[in-house]
Amino acid sequence: MPVYSAPVKDIQFVLHDLLKAGESDIPGYQELSREFTAAVLAEAGKLASDVLAPLNAVGDQQGCRLENGTVHTPEGFADAFARIREGGWNGLDLPEEFGGQGLPYLLGTAVGEIMVSANMALNMYQGLTHGAINALLAHGTEDQKATYLPKMVSLEWTGTMNLTEPHCGTDLGLIRTKATPRDDGSYAITGQKIFISAGDHDLARNVIHLVLAKAPGGGEGTRGISLFLVPKFIIDADGEPGVRNAVSVGKIEKKMGIHGNATCVMDYDGATGYLVGELHHGMRAMFTMMNEARIGVGLQGYAQAEAALQNARAYAHERLQGRATSGARNPDGPADPIIVHPDVRRMLLDQKSFVEGARAFTLWGAQLIDRARCNDDAAAEGMISLLTPVIKGVLTDRGFDSTILAQQVFGGHGYIEEWGMSQLARDARIAMIYEGANGIQALDLVGRKLARDGGKHVMAFFELVRNFIDENAADAALKADFLDPLAKASKDLQAAGRYFMETGMKDPDAALSGSYDFMHLFGHVCLGLMWARMARVAKAALEDGAADRNFYQAKLATGRYYMTRQLPATSLHLARIQSGGAPVMSLEAQDF
Amino acid sequence: MPVYSAPVKDIQFVLHDLLKAGESDIPGYQELSREFTAAVLAEAGKLASDVLAPLNAVGDQQGCRLENGTVHTPEGFADAFARIREGGWNGLDLPEEFGGQGLPYLLGTAVGEIMVSANMALNMYQGLTHGAINALLAHGTEDQKATYLPKMVSLEWTGTMNLTEPHCGTDLGLIRTKATPRDDGSYAITGQKIFISAGDHDLARNVIHLVLAKAPGGGEGTRGISLFLVPKFIIDADGEPGVRNAVSVGKIEKKMGIHGNATCVMDYDGATGYLVGELHHGMRAMFTMMNEARIGVGLQGYAQAEAALQNARAYAHERLQGRATSGARNPDGPADPIIVHPDVRRMLLDQKSFVEGARAFTLWGAQLIDRARCNDDAAAEGMISLLTPVIKGVLTDRGFDSTILAQQVFGGHGYIEEWGMSQLARDARIAMIYEGANGIQALDLVGRKLARDGGKHVMAFFELVRNFIDENAADAALKADFLDPLAKASKDLQAAGRYFMETGMKDPDAALSGSYDFMHLFGHVCLGLMWARMARVAKAALEDGAADRNFYQAKLATGRYYMTRQLPATSLHLARIQSGGAPVMSLEAQDF
Repeated sequence: MPVYSAPVKDIQFVLHDLLKAGESDIPGYQELSREFTAAVLAEAGKLASDVLAPLNAVGDQQGCRLENGTVHTPEGFADAFARIREGGWNGLDLPEEFGGQGLPYLLGTAVGEIMVSANMALNMYQGLTHGAINALLAHGTEDQKATYLPKMVSLEWTGTMNLTEPHCGTDLGLIRTKATPRDDGSYAITGQKIFISAGDHDLARNVIHLVLAKAPGGGEGTRGISLFLVPKFIIDADGEPGVRNAVSVGKIEKKMGIHGNATCVMDYDGATGYLVGELHHGMRAMFTMMNEARIGVGLQGYAQAEAALQNARAYAHERLQGRATSGARNPDGPADPIIVHPDVRRMLLDQKSFVEGARAFTLWGAQLIDRARCNDDAAAEGMISLLTPVIKGVLTDRGFDSTILAQQVFGGHGYIEEWGMSQLARDARIAMIYEGANGIQALDLVGRKLARDGGKHVMAFFELVRNFIDENAADAALKADFLDPLAKASKDLQAAGRYFMETGMKDPDAALSGSYDFMHLFGHVCLGLMWARMARVAKAALEDGAADRNFYQAKLATGRYYMTRQLPATSLHLARIQSGGAPVMSLEAQDF
Repeated sequence: MPVYSAPVKDIQFVLHDLLKAGESDIPGYQELSREFTAAVLAEAGKLASDVLAPLNAVGDQQGCRLENGTVHTPEGFADAFARIREGGWNGLDLPEEFGGQGLPYLLGTAVGEIMVSANMALNMYQGLTHGAINALLAHGTEDQKATYLPKMVSLEWTGTMNLTEPHCGTDLGLIRTKATPRDDGSYAITGQKIFISAGDHDLARNVIHLVLAKAPGGGEGTRGISLFLVPKFIIDADGEPGVRNAVSVGKIEKKMGIHGNATCVMDYDGATGYLVGELHHGMRAMFTMMNEARIGVGLQGYAQAEAALQNARAYAHERLQGRATSGARNPDGPADPIIVHPDVRRMLLDQKSFVEGARAFTLWGAQLIDRARCNDDAAAEGMISLLTPVIKGVLTDRGFDSTILAQQVFGGHGYIEEWGMSQLARDARIAMIYEGANGIQALDLVGRKLARDGGKHVMAFFELVRNFIDENAADAALKADFLDPLAKASKDLQAAGRYFMETGMKDPDAALSGSYDFMHLFGHVCLGLMWARMARVAKAALEDGAADRNFYQAKLATGRYYMTRQLPATSLHLARIQSGGAPVMSLEAQDF
């Protein structure tokens, strides 16, 4: 049975040492004192360890079942969900106006990591609701907000996002679900949606579906798409769930993982729906909520990796096998713990240096969102918009790889379900696919985000890296271990950017052939930047005589590992990018 | 439902164009005409497509169950296994003396790929038997061979290998299973073994377990280990299964994949066992059969990748989504097939260039085994001994990665079990773990194989690469596209080898910190060599006016992809190796 304990100290290191949350000028950040975040994170950690984590394997084994049109979640999920609801966790970073606590998204994200690490499948019921709330906050009418948001913020009702249909996922212009206007201003929604996470369940009294559909009079393709709100039970005059709407669950998919979350085929058969946002501008409504949803999925990647790492580390300390080459470390035992072996350490350090870098990257991203939203800061909005596909694509790819490494540390036991490492890998796998498959993230990055606003956001990123390097160049040790490798990696990224500028217009396929490598190259530079920044604050803490010297020294050692063993991958990515389109495009389709 | 069709043409390309099997001086190879291998491979392919592949998902869904001490395999497995038995497939490359057909191991391996691609879990019952047969051929007494081999070759009985115990896998010196001598020359075997693939089942009349145990008077650690044969039913005077032996199945493990194969906990409670080979030299007996077993596992890696690639390719042709940047390819349809998109092509080419390179590498390895065995060729034996950990470690790691890529091509459908891509990935995952986890393969390569016989085998490998480059240097196109990149990669490998020579003795941890990277660096050079050799023969075929020009041109294009996009990874591996032990060893164990 896998263990989980919230890494409060590591999270606080990012919030306070790195991001200086309490000292920020972002509205609401003044509340984020070390004492306050310690209390919130500890409380979340208690819920995670005591309630959510023990149900993770139960959810995997039992899965969800459809009986007489109703989805039943695994044993214990309803009680645990009630605990999340009663604790007010969903509203932590949502507006007070609708019953939330109005705390920064940064803190909500930190708490989110803990919940996702403990039980990703269960947390998705809440996560999807969060996404739907954001869409309504941005695009709902005042009436819609008043009717739906208080109940969704409190988790009395949950939400879903309905985009995909059997014949289209990425290419939403092809959707067939129809919205027919009715006289009362509502629409009749008819069609089939698939892969609807948390599509139905027994955890809440109502489910509020947000559905993309085509209403008459829209253009071809994505221009004809609108967004509709379709409640499972139509709200009555008292604001309570009333008549059952004409939406039903066709089936629950059998999946590789996240069995505890019901992935539903949803059948809309003239269901009553209400327009959200402007008619024929549903894609825009979807996109405004995309950043947060994608960052939430990136978070799933490293949160599963964190859970896996905790278990791999524990196993590496306990499992006795072989002897250290430098002499027995456990001479009285039959063998040494496997953490003495260099290759086991390599596997753990790959995981650790990734997870800690990814956490810093994600929380920095969350801070940018707060800044964009609360300070109306266009530069912050541009930066997070640029970084979002990187967070989503890179953190889910490498998060999955990390769970595979953790499984490998367990040897044969890693393959046996009861040890729990298989589930973490199987659950993590979905994050590379949903909310825009990672190839789509790379396309978004190279095809859209790079050139946005004349390329000014990527320029701002380079400047940020350069300024950090310049400001700290006097520290010789930091320079050698962190700044020089970062400068080299950043140079590779700039060279790749130049390659796209030069070839992108005249040979788009040449640019797109390197999009995936570019996304990972960008991710390496971001994690390298995070490690350089974390190294600087860890050194400062040590120089200031911090009590827990081991903690800060471990940050430095882990960071050096990243800079030495991981960051040099940028050269390989650049070489692939610069090889252009010929290797990828020259084989005829029929000869594959 | 996934499809599978044996890639006969690709296999024949390797057997005949590349390895010139029919023209070889190895005894038995003269039979390997193109006509003969075409007939055998087509027949195997028919069995695979018609019988084995349709049961693959069934095996995954039903798994094995233990009832009243007996293991029941999934529906249809017994009939399919009978078809394998009746076809004489198991004996294809086994000695005629014991009922086999005495054909080269090379051909057996080619057939093995087909069977493993179609149904890995089912094929393991046969594969484990093959391993046990090899151990008995090498170390059994004449009586033992006469009693057991004919029945095992014919698959009337199957075999298993019992090494692992709950507290030890890699470190076999710790095993506790005891062998107590009896007056009649047999031994009483007592202990528990775990992770025993094909440990019990209803496919055959008897199961012959080969068991590592400690007999009195042996030394400490691995020196005290002997190998015993323990039949499920003790053979009676007529040579038939008689009295039930005191060995039973404790439980069947629930695993991430290969559900169709029963992974058993085996309890030995004073079971009758017979010594195989010399007393206290059981490890040696194990090691002689290790090469083939490990190559068989490496084969599983790329065979699963081949099956996954076939399905990803088909999906990429069928799925309509988006448009090619260079103009619609399917203007009358709602969208273009996704194979037009550069990033989808990248995923397919990563898989294709790996699978075809891995097939060539494995079959070359099989040819070396034939040469070593039949021609008593010590150089061939040394070479395959060096390459075995590379085949096992690299092909299973990258084979798994390849199944993950294939799954990714399917988008959301890849995560749904009914599409079959999840199973291929889950099944492939075990190959990185069993038969020596891949970290152990890297240790074997760097700690044992590199320095064996004064390093002469690795020198022979470098010479082989150099000679190939020199012999073909006059071909300018081959040189630019294949030989130059290969020379660069080989130089990286030599630099890594030198690093180990220089640091290995004085700082073993520094060498071992780079062992995994070295294994993958070596693997890249091997696949680069294979692609260069395949390119040469493909060019020759084109120059000779071969009928199927597309086939050979596709080989060249796929090879160029490998050289351009994959092979440059050698620099990254070298950089990591040369960073030495400090990044890996400096973090204190308690600070992980």
